[in-house]
Amino acid sequence: MTSAAFPTVEEYEAQVTGWWRTGITRIRPGEILLRGYPVEELIGNITFVDQIWLMLRGELPTPDQSRLLEAALVAAVDHGPQAPSIAAARMAATCGVGLNNAVATGTNLLGDVHGGAGQQCMEVLREIQERAGDGGDVDAAAAELVAEYRARGEHVPGFGHRFHPRDPRRDPLLELTERAADAGAVTGWALRAGRALEAALAAGRSRPVPMNIDGATAIIYSELGFAPELGRGLFVLSRSVGILAHAWEETTSGSRIKGPLPRPLLAGYDGPEPRAVPRRA
Amino acid sequence: MTSAAFPTVEEYEAQVTGWWRTGITRIRPGEILLRGYPVEELIGNITFVDQIWLMLRGELPTPDQSRLLEAALVAAVDHGPQAPSIAAARMAATCGVGLNNAVATGTNLLGDVHGGAGQQCMEVLREIQERAGDGGDVDAAAAELVAEYRARGEHVPGFGHRFHPRDPRRDPLLELTERAADAGAVTGWALRAGRALEAALAAGRSRPVPMNIDGATAIIYSELGFAPELGRGLFVLSRSVGILAHAWEETTSGSRIKGPLPRPLLAGYDGPEPRAVPRRA
Amino acid sequence: MTSAAFPTVEEYEAQVTGWWRTGITRIRPGEILLRGYPVEELIGNITFVDQIWLMLRGELPTPDQSRLLEAALVAAVDHGPQAPSIAAARMAATCGVGLNNAVATGTNLLGDVHGGAGQQCMEVLREIQERAGDGGDVDAAAAELVAEYRARGEHVPGFGHRFHPRDPRRDPLLELTERAADAGAVTGWALRAGRALEAALAAGRSRPVPMNIDGATAIIYSELGFAPELGRGLFVLSRSVGILAHAWEETTSGSRIKGPLPRPLLAGYDGPEPRAVPRRA
Amino acid sequence: MTSAAFPTVEEYEAQVTGWWRTGITRIRPGEILLRGYPVEELIGNITFVDQIWLMLRGELPTPDQSRLLEAALVAAVDHGPQAPSIAAARMAATCGVGLNNAVATGTNLLGDVHGGAGQQCMEVLREIQERAGDGGDVDAAAAELVAEYRARGEHVPGFGHRFHPRDPRRDPLLELTERAADAGAVTGWALRAGRALEAALAAGRSRPVPMNIDGATAIIYSELGFAPELGRGLFVLSRSVGILAHAWEETTSGSRIKGPLPRPLLAGYDGPEPRAVPRRA
Repeated sequence: MTSAAFPTVEEYEAQVTGWWRTGITRIRPGEILLRGYPVEELIGNITFVDQIWLMLRGELPTPDQSRLLEAALVAAVDHGPQAPSIAAARMAATCGVGLNNAVATGTNLLGDVHGGAGQQCMEVLREIQERAGDGGDVDAAAAELVAEYRARGEHVPGFGHRFHPRDPRRDPLLELTERAADAGAVTGWALRAGRALEAALAAGRSRPVPMNIDGATAIIYSELGFAPELGRGLFVLSRSVGILAHAWEETTSGSRIKGPLPRPLLAGYDGPEPRAVPRRA
Repeated sequence: MTSAAFPTVEEYEAQVTGWWRTGITRIRPGEILLRGYPVEELIGNITFVDQIWLMLRGELPTPDQSRLLEAALVAAVDHGPQAPSIAAARMAATCGVGLNNAVATGTNLLGDVHGGAGQQCMEVLREIQERAGDGGDVDAAAAELVAEYRARGEHVPGFGHRFHPRDPRRDPLLELTERAADAGAVTGWALRAGRALEAALAAGRSRPVPMNIDGATAIIYSELGFAPELGRGLFVLSRSVGILAHAWEETTSGSRIKGPLPRPLLAGYDGPEPRAVPRRA
Repeated sequence: MTSAAFPTVEEYEAQVTGWWRTGITRIRPGEILLRGYPVEELIGNITFVDQIWLMLRGELPTPDQSRLLEAALVAAVDHGPQAPSIAAARMAATCGVGLNNAVATGTNLLGDVHGGAGQQCMEVLREIQERAGDGGDVDAAAAELVAEYRARGEHVPGFGHRFHPRDPRRDPLLELTERAADAGAVTGWALRAGRALEAALAAGRSRPVPMNIDGATAIIYSELGFAPELGRGLFVLSRSVGILAHAWEETTSGSRIKGPLPRPLLAGYDGPEPRAVPRRA
Repeated sequence: MTSAAFPTVEEYEAQVTGWWRTGITRIRPGEILLRGYPVEELIGNITFVDQIWLMLRGELPTPDQSRLLEAALVAAVDHGPQAPSIAAARMAATCGVGLNNAVATGTNLLGDVHGGAGQQCMEVLREIQERAGDGGDVDAAAAELVAEYRARGEHVPGFGHRFHPRDPRRDPLLELTERAADAGAVTGWALRAGRALEAALAAGRSRPVPMNIDGATAIIYSELGFAPELGRGLFVLSRSVGILAHAWEETTSGSRIKGPLPRPLLAGYDGPEPRAVPRRA
């Protein structure tokens, strides 16, 4: 139609198979290959976290890599119904949509602001590493970067929490990363950069700005070699568990068309007072 | 505003805290309780699958229960870019939305038809169990139910595949369930019902209608005591992994605004021929 | 690949153009036909409501039909931020996703419970018409159906409002429908059925159960010959306006990660008290 | 709970009503005010496009403003099932989700790349206007900006089309804008900037790069004083019509779980060849 010459069967075949080409899965009658592994051999032989790694990276992780990723996924599943992603999913569950739609409603909200801090922190860690260079001064690079953020009046993503003076998920995640570094499972480059950032942020302040869950998982995902964008992707997989649990709890409560506030506590109105519609000439 | 009497602080407090009441998570400054467990104790001590179970069920699973759930989650992650959920997520990835939006686009499609067969199969298994009663004749109940479906010209959910003569995920999942039943980790009631259905469907047919992934996972989720709705919920968690992997692969390919077909292969048009817009009097 | 015989170019072409066949739009270089009309002739010559009708029905509406549809679309745009669809969209707007994602978040919640009453009411109107038959007793059919709903302890969709004693949108919509019926633009069958239902619901009650926006628009969409499913579709188009307006208002307010309740008013927790994680053997 | 001091009823009230404050809608028993106008007075007295303007802007438009907005909304409803937003919605319709979920699936894809060109073009038009200043040289500013885009190897948003040599929607939209400017309904500043851009892009080229639908509607939305972000918002409202029409057409076709390609035309696979799963020690 748009191609002047009439294509051959081979040209059609090439166009179509090239259009939706994938290296993840090969489906043939009776065969499902995932990254080259027959699915029937994976079932029962790898963990769900191994499967997540395999699907995203193309190869199976080592047990040490898998354990570290597992800790990060376990840590980020939920932060309660005050989070808009969870609240929206609970509301969806009261509106007569499927559980899949409720989960989609929640994950759809994990954007740059609500779900992107980990991704942004991974980019910051990488930036510090690049500035310091091989065997360079990570502390100086971190201090320099913190100064730049403060000059711009911006927060460094992954540090501080509007609710927790100290995020309870920080310590166990850093300890596991340290152990993995000691065991040689990871190099520890991102851990050093993160600690340097934390120190630079605390320098000369009465109240420190400790690393939060986004910062701690950003270190782990960076150490494990994930691209920053996948930092958000992995957060989505983890938080989907909490979103599903809350949507299900709301479903079983049997509530219908449930908004953010109980009816008597209506949203405030600050618009114009009642007025008449002007008649058109 | 709508309540005649003016509420007291206690009434307000009760209204609000009652409105978004949850038994899943307790958040206080410096504290995150998940089902009563401090998150810092869960990190590093339980698997991601344990966490999924804990969040959905309220208690931690036994190692045997966890392993069985893990196998089902590993099995269902992906079935290639021909599935609309995967294809839509890949398309989303080419439209300039976040990875979270791409994943939400995919999970949003896992409705009654695309993602609900497992849930429906769990209800069928339960129906057979109820008809047979304790120590009753499961085979007769299954045959009866199959006859009813055939009389209505309906397919029994969880059996047969439009692509695989025999779904490669069936055997390993059933073997693991059998082993769990032999070990006393599960009772085996759903496995017996599922096998009875498979036999009833094959009876007097040259070509059998073997159990597919939805049927095999329905047996596992039923044996583990999940509600049918959560059969779909767990499928959403598992398939989200494939959706994310495909969305990410498409993202890294750098394609933009990518539709279902390469441009020269335009969708067919069978609407009215060109016509003029009637002028309004 | 899966087809034994190797297809010809014609077979490929047929498969592909047949796969995404449409009667709505024909796109060729320099040409955009909508239902057969060149888009450049539609622009400036038809209203947006005419366009909605044309796209959904295939033909242009009469001015009377268009005016009636317009009234229904104007009436249903918004019911304030207490509605979960609006609230979820406002929350989305604070999470760093695009306005399109915020609107999608809102429309995604307009399911059977939150957005389906109009569709269900259209089916009820049709049911009454069928029971009464041509020139039959609509009042008797309505009374019978109301009795059945009460026997099942169900509400008749499209009647009563949990907030408005009398929905202010009811009267103007019914008046316009009446005028259209008097002018012969519509037959009035659904208006008669709706009024009969309202009378049957009020019979022998101190407090009547007047028609709400879902009932009034259901009458209009039914009179205009739309399928019940499109009753929800049209509601989605109308409510999308309110969803967009609220998402935009929230965006301009600059709030970030805004949940359902101000922080001090935490959701209540009724789960287990703090407990220790059991150590695995 | 988190606030040390115990709030008074007034403090609670202030927190809650301040949290979801809106100037769009006031809902009281028996009352629905939209931007101050009682909804019952709007029904039948304003057009749907007037309503869209009122909800987004706070005031009613003039008839000239309304007509111009109407033309833009009529123009952008659809560009066929090759667009990923339309294709994804059609796929959703085959998966057993509601029409509202199908529409949400489509609008969710109208991100920066697929739905943002109009918004980006509005920012470019504003940039040219600012560079030229009052009574300044718009042509020079446009030429300068085009040179900068070319130096960066970027396309100017709103110009050129990968499919149409000349977008058929361009001319009628520009003519209507011209007439509105001649009538004094708009100032014409964005029209001048857009034409200057088009001329600068064509300068010294054998093949011009004419304005497309995004550019033409960007001019109209800019002339009407909408914020760039609402350029995308209005596109979402318009394209939702096409998305709904296509989702409905697919629904009525009765197809189930319909992916991007007919089965025999499988997506190509370029991943690893079959391999064995390594056994864990």
